[in-house]
Amino acid sequence: MFRRTLLLFTTIGFATLCQAANDPLPAWRDGPHKQRILEFVHDISTPGSSTYVTPAERIAVFDDDGTLWPEKPGPQGLFALQVLRAQAPQHPEWRTQMPFTAALELQGKYLQEADDASVFQLVAVANAGRTQSAFRSEAREFLSTARHPRFQQSWSRLAYQPMHELLAYLRANGFHNFIVSSASVDVARILASDTYGISSDDVIGSNVVTTLRNEDGTLVLRRLATVHALNDGALKPLSIDQHIGQRPILAVGNVRSGSDIDMLHYSQGAETQASGPQGSPRHSLQILINHDDFDREYAYDEKDRASLNAADTNGWMIVSMRYDWRLVFSFQTADAPAQAGAQ
Amino acid sequence: MFRRTLLLFTTIGFATLCQAANDPLPAWRDGPHKQRILEFVHDISTPGSSTYVTPAERIAVFDDDGTLWPEKPGPQGLFALQVLRAQAPQHPEWRTQMPFTAALELQGKYLQEADDASVFQLVAVANAGRTQSAFRSEAREFLSTARHPRFQQSWSRLAYQPMHELLAYLRANGFHNFIVSSASVDVARILASDTYGISSDDVIGSNVVTTLRNEDGTLVLRRLATVHALNDGALKPLSIDQHIGQRPILAVGNVRSGSDIDMLHYSQGAETQASGPQGSPRHSLQILINHDDFDREYAYDEKDRASLNAADTNGWMIVSMRYDWRLVFSFQTADAPAQAGAQ
Repeated sequence: MFRRTLLLFTTIGFATLCQAANDPLPAWRDGPHKQRILEFVHDISTPGSSTYVTPAERIAVFDDDGTLWPEKPGPQGLFALQVLRAQAPQHPEWRTQMPFTAALELQGKYLQEADDASVFQLVAVANAGRTQSAFRSEAREFLSTARHPRFQQSWSRLAYQPMHELLAYLRANGFHNFIVSSASVDVARILASDTYGISSDDVIGSNVVTTLRNEDGTLVLRRLATVHALNDGALKPLSIDQHIGQRPILAVGNVRSGSDIDMLHYSQGAETQASGPQGSPRHSLQILINHDDFDREYAYDEKDRASLNAADTNGWMIVSMRYDWRLVFSFQTADAPAQAGAQ
Repeated sequence: MFRRTLLLFTTIGFATLCQAANDPLPAWRDGPHKQRILEFVHDISTPGSSTYVTPAERIAVFDDDGTLWPEKPGPQGLFALQVLRAQAPQHPEWRTQMPFTAALELQGKYLQEADDASVFQLVAVANAGRTQSAFRSEAREFLSTARHPRFQQSWSRLAYQPMHELLAYLRANGFHNFIVSSASVDVARILASDTYGISSDDVIGSNVVTTLRNEDGTLVLRRLATVHALNDGALKPLSIDQHIGQRPILAVGNVRSGSDIDMLHYSQGAETQASGPQGSPRHSLQILINHDDFDREYAYDEKDRASLNAADTNGWMIVSMRYDWRLVFSFQTADAPAQAGAQ
């Protein structure tokens, strides 16, 4: 009896160990959502199957603020606030001009509630006149030293661990991952590179108008205060088409302002795939991250529930940070795997 | 005596063979220009040297029409003409409206002389109303079957062989190659992929305004007749900054309309490299292709000589297609290496 139990225990232990060692997504709790991701990647990478997608067509797009790292506040807002504070003495008009008044008086509280357009306007105005290379140096300097007000960690440590694993898993299966941000593309590029190893040309985002000037024989680009494009909502599919030139087969966004709905919907395009059988619907996956984890990150939702409604209507996966993720950040302790399926 | 001659002959033959086998640029004639390219790549990839550039910073940008394949005519013009001809019966107004009148009456001769802006306007108007995926399918279909009017070869065979070798050589040395076209980005992407193996997201170019529409539950992008951006002249550095987020260290363009001057000048930026010693000027290379080969390709120049003047002033390399290239296309016979240095 004793020997049999020991044998059984050993066998289970070994099986669990093997599973853990082979698991590409250990920070994701076992369950239908994790299973669906694994099956999707298996389906599109199985040659000869009707769901097969060639590596050249394996395009994945990710929102960043709230999808890859926290957005309450997001990194561009904190950087803009620092520059605004430093410049405020030279700009008395900001005392009575929105959104500057609100940003300077409320500081972090302002960033909690402000929409992307207002925050990006702060970035645009605060950094007007700078060269692109100076702007990037200063933003990199800020992001490498700044600490998140709640977690007291550097931004490079605030990557969501499950997304870190998902990006690596996709890359290992031939996907080309892009970040499609509604924040400043220049700020997003720094974090994308430092926290996820995604190169600058694989990041799309909002930008300001720049002018080309010959200064002492060198051509430099200087930023103006004017917003060129706020890469939000319906502009995301357009900028994806312009930058990548292909429709993605996987899109990941998050619930907050509805700004990822069009991107997720666009990735679900019914056009037939170049590689598949004529007329077959293209296999794709849409993931919506829901911030419902007050303890480990934040809990917030959308007033009109538009993102969740779109997910329900179109069959998108809604990921619960609280139930689907064993841990949010690498510096937190993972929930025991035994809690799997607790949802 | 006989044995000694034989030995000498064998030694020379072997040395020549070894040199040819190790030569990454066999279609380039030996001489100072080829030497400068080889030295530049050696200098920036030698760790510890003052000219070293990290792989992440090894960005190379290439114009396409006239730099990677012929531009008299270029591919987008031929495609636009075909679509215009098919649609002309429904557009009687084109008979008295420029540039349509000229394009339809002069056909190929029009494309020889028209500027990029006019030709791109033809592309924009001829394809207005199409979805992006339909436009790409039709352009791909056209480019895979069309023959160049003079060379009677498909477009995929019209890659300049020396540029094919240069792109491969750079890639093998850690460079990330981008195409920065003033033509339609969608047309450029097809040729970039089919002839040079460059993926669609590594191509920047001109584009039209597109609108996002929900058609039968699917989001599709439809092209309008309005030009969004003509990626020419001063817009090239801006679009490079927006798309890549880094200043290139190598830029290649050609003499015709001066549209590559700003791009080449921009790549010569004097800002210090992130990786190098503080304050050291950044190592870079600029190459200007000169069409002076009437026999094997075309011979034409710029009225104001602006590109050649800029090259002289700034120390850019001016490549003579006639003297620097042993062959232009892979289907031509290479000049004997013995002619090396004939310049």
